[in-house]
Amino acid sequence: MSIGSASDEPARLANIISTVFADQAGWTRSLSGNERVKLLVGADGQDDCAVFGLSGSMDLVVGSDYVRGSKFSLYELGYLDYFDVGYYLAMANFSDIAAMGAEPIGLLSVIRYPKAMSDEHFRSVTEGIDEACRSVGAFNVGGDIGTAERLILSASAIGVVESGCSLLRSGARPGDRLCLTGATGVAAAAQRYFGKLDVAGEKISKQNEETLISSWKRPQAKIWQGRLLSTSGSVTSCQDSSDGLKAAVESMAAHSGVGFVVDERALPIVDVVAEVARLADVDLTSLILGDSVDFQLACTVSADDVASLRAAFEEQGGHLYEIGVATAETSVILRRSDGTADPLPGNAWRHAT
Amino acid sequence: MSIGSASDEPARLANIISTVFADQAGWTRSLSGNERVKLLVGADGQDDCAVFGLSGSMDLVVGSDYVRGSKFSLYELGYLDYFDVGYYLAMANFSDIAAMGAEPIGLLSVIRYPKAMSDEHFRSVTEGIDEACRSVGAFNVGGDIGTAERLILSASAIGVVESGCSLLRSGARPGDRLCLTGATGVAAAAQRYFGKLDVAGEKISKQNEETLISSWKRPQAKIWQGRLLSTSGSVTSCQDSSDGLKAAVESMAAHSGVGFVVDERALPIVDVVAEVARLADVDLTSLILGDSVDFQLACTVSADDVASLRAAFEEQGGHLYEIGVATAETSVILRRSDGTADPLPGNAWRHAT
Repeated sequence: MSIGSASDEPARLANIISTVFADQAGWTRSLSGNERVKLLVGADGQDDCAVFGLSGSMDLVVGSDYVRGSKFSLYELGYLDYFDVGYYLAMANFSDIAAMGAEPIGLLSVIRYPKAMSDEHFRSVTEGIDEACRSVGAFNVGGDIGTAERLILSASAIGVVESGCSLLRSGARPGDRLCLTGATGVAAAAQRYFGKLDVAGEKISKQNEETLISSWKRPQAKIWQGRLLSTSGSVTSCQDSSDGLKAAVESMAAHSGVGFVVDERALPIVDVVAEVARLADVDLTSLILGDSVDFQLACTVSADDVASLRAAFEEQGGHLYEIGVATAETSVILRRSDGTADPLPGNAWRHAT
Repeated sequence: MSIGSASDEPARLANIISTVFADQAGWTRSLSGNERVKLLVGADGQDDCAVFGLSGSMDLVVGSDYVRGSKFSLYELGYLDYFDVGYYLAMANFSDIAAMGAEPIGLLSVIRYPKAMSDEHFRSVTEGIDEACRSVGAFNVGGDIGTAERLILSASAIGVVESGCSLLRSGARPGDRLCLTGATGVAAAAQRYFGKLDVAGEKISKQNEETLISSWKRPQAKIWQGRLLSTSGSVTSCQDSSDGLKAAVESMAAHSGVGFVVDERALPIVDVVAEVARLADVDLTSLILGDSVDFQLACTVSADDVASLRAAFEEQGGHLYEIGVATAETSVILRRSDGTADPLPGNAWRHAT
């Protein structure tokens, strides 16, 4: 670290957060009575959430996410309203809980608003948060409200998972199958379509426009999917795709000490994403793998258990896509439809303001 | 609520938060196995934290606080650095845990920074957070980092308390004694002295300046004090003074359905606060009762138990000040030294940007 330098977020995670918050896992602390608390997953794990072990049959899972909210480009362009950004705030936080295989039980939210924000708009934000909480069965327990020079939205989600069953980024073994709970690229396609193409020309159908905008207005954290993964006993690592599928796979590789071969032909595709890729003249696979916030779960599954886990997903009306395999060789590559191999394409992980 | 109107924070709490988040207390939810989670204190209680009952001997206590950080006037004036604002962020959150009588076990933090913020300054913020966590024995488990147009700091603290023993704003009964863990007004005096008076003239001693600035640089959440209060079995209500002592007492009155007579002569006074009041030509009692963020705990104690609880505080090297009494009559009044009675003076609760 040189004085005055300003490195990017991944570098700060690696060089600062991981040293200041080092070697936490396994910390224990005695409380009154015979109660003990153990930190099972700390910040140094760089997982979606931290995990505490307490007495009782469940571990406590907690995570925080700030969202840009009124700085979302689709909000600024008029496609999202205050209810939507409140809803999104809560769901982004629940997605972190889902990625750990936990059940969300509560949400704390911070709503700071400009003094001139009307009661009606403030109420819309709180109602969006509340609706998202209700949809996943979590208690909306308040937090902090007050003024700021612009709308600032942040939250923390609280969940529980059977002791010792939380899903981490680490744990994948060579031979494990890389699986995905659904298609990615929709949120990124929405940004491209509404943000950059000439939507007044109605180049895609109204229904397809609805599909795109829904990924921002009513994103769904993959709660039951995460629960199925954590209770199956077959899943060795997991992460949500909130930084994009490429980032999720590369992070699981780095934390597990494995590589992956991702099969381009196996990637699930939503028609409208392919349509936007054509209209925008961008590589479809890059759009699918890039930093699209779709809140899907990527995970690794013991090879012998993939079939039964896929069947369990189908029974619940969902689907688990097998998109690749973990390798002992630590590089992460895409096997193209034509048989060639490339590094994973797609925009690098970033969190723009 | 009229369309387009923008009411203040207390009004939004009363009219919007309390209706959107209504009637939560007592909600229960079944989880896998025989596990159940019960929401013991929700947002509608407007307590410092929410409380969840899980299996095991401890309840879970969680709360969120956003702090102005680099918008603190004393930061802008150069009296606080990045380490200090990180430290403050964590302590403000632990104070909410202390006010519930709970033991802090962890902290989630959100650090959003301007792209140009140096690694050195970013590291200082994280080290300040970490130091505060260590000082109370809580795990610093990370949260969310990323960029924003200015430094944005928010956090959530997690604590545990013996089942059923969390301290609420409600519960005070007529005849209970109003008590306070220490003097208030120091943080407000610091703002007045450094922000408005001519400090270059060194009107107060260096040591007194240190006392003032410490209230911002190294505030201390009253953790052991809160634990003593919650485990005593003698405390009927509690709140921290983070919105000022006047706001704390009035809030306990409103939520408990009682009034208070506060005895002006019994209010603990720090000499330098009296000195600043003289220099600034403001009423000392107003400074003590106004919106000074000192993180003391105000509580009500069964009259018969005050003496033994005070003795327990002295044993720990602390002090519990008896400053008034709860009344059946619901007004909150100050009995002045001269025998006259007034409403509580002091700035109304506010959270300026």
